[in-house]
Amino acid sequence: MSKTQQVVFHLPEGDTAYGQKVFRNVLNLLADETISVSVAVVANGGGIDHLLATAPTAETARKLRESGVELLLCSNTLEGSEHELDDFIDGVEVVSSAMGELTRRQANGAGYIRP
Amino acid sequence: MSKTQQVVFHLPEGDTAYGQKVFRNVLNLLADETISVSVAVVANGGGIDHLLATAPTAETARKLRESGVELLLCSNTLEGSEHELDDFIDGVEVVSSAMGELTRRQANGAGYIRP
Amino acid sequence: MSKTQQVVFHLPEGDTAYGQKVFRNVLNLLADETISVSVAVVANGGGIDHLLATAPTAETARKLRESGVELLLCSNTLEGSEHELDDFIDGVEVVSSAMGELTRRQANGAGYIRP
Repeated sequence: MSKTQQVVFHLPEGDTAYGQKVFRNVLNLLADETISVSVAVVANGGGIDHLLATAPTAETARKLRESGVELLLCSNTLEGSEHELDDFIDGVEVVSSAMGELTRRQANGAGYIRP
Repeated sequence: MSKTQQVVFHLPEGDTAYGQKVFRNVLNLLADETISVSVAVVANGGGIDHLLATAPTAETARKLRESGVELLLCSNTLEGSEHELDDFIDGVEVVSSAMGELTRRQANGAGYIRP
Repeated sequence: MSKTQQVVFHLPEGDTAYGQKVFRNVLNLLADETISVSVAVVANGGGIDHLLATAPTAETARKLRESGVELLLCSNTLEGSEHELDDFIDGVEVVSSAMGELTRRQANGAGYIRP
């Protein structure tokens, strides 16, 4: 096994089928035994909905978090929404901005995937 | 403040709401005080419309340009369109191809964001 | 001419117009004389349809393959589909997972483009 690779998924869309697809993509990556990865999901815009405790995707999101996947919310989106951090599943964290976080992680060597 | 990070936004879709979202994403990045960035937007396909002087997004595009954001048009798209460079806001520049520019900038260390 | 740059295109959507757009993007990149590139296309989800021998895009896909472009299928998608590898154009190869391949190639220095 080679060294662990960093990768950040960008989740900007609110459609439920889209959220399910992205989380399935992450699960497929975690299940791929040919590569060792450290994964973060950065949600902004409608994409933050998939991390709500009441979302159809909440159970999958919890499973991802328990598998070590970082689940990150854009503070700009959060502030402009009707939600508070308490509305999201446990373990979700807020980042200064989705765009800043995506830039910073790539600058630090992470790959980027936009399903 | 750490060193300035390069990032290139890919803008391939013509829908006005999409263009507005992308420009808002860029503004959010510029406003993020936790990171120092140098930003380029590479527009191709329908995405070039958001840089037209008559576009609903023209004023925001000018503001981005004045903030130092590079606004780049794909020459293939431009040649296949009904527009000339004069139809776009001041400061827009033409690149050999959107795909080539996105590749080159990433090869030179830029991050990539596809809203 | 500077050294050859690696780039990987992510092709996750099944719409025919989308597939045609992505392949046109790749052709534009190959035609860009200002940059030397080595290109792979990683297809998953509906995106694998564009590589079928019976697809409207089959002829263009063959042309890309003959030009040296790697055409890669996600094994998860393939296993969950009604297709077998023989249904695809010659030269298509299967990768352990689309997400793993996109991560690995970026970790090895490739740029990423998601049209």
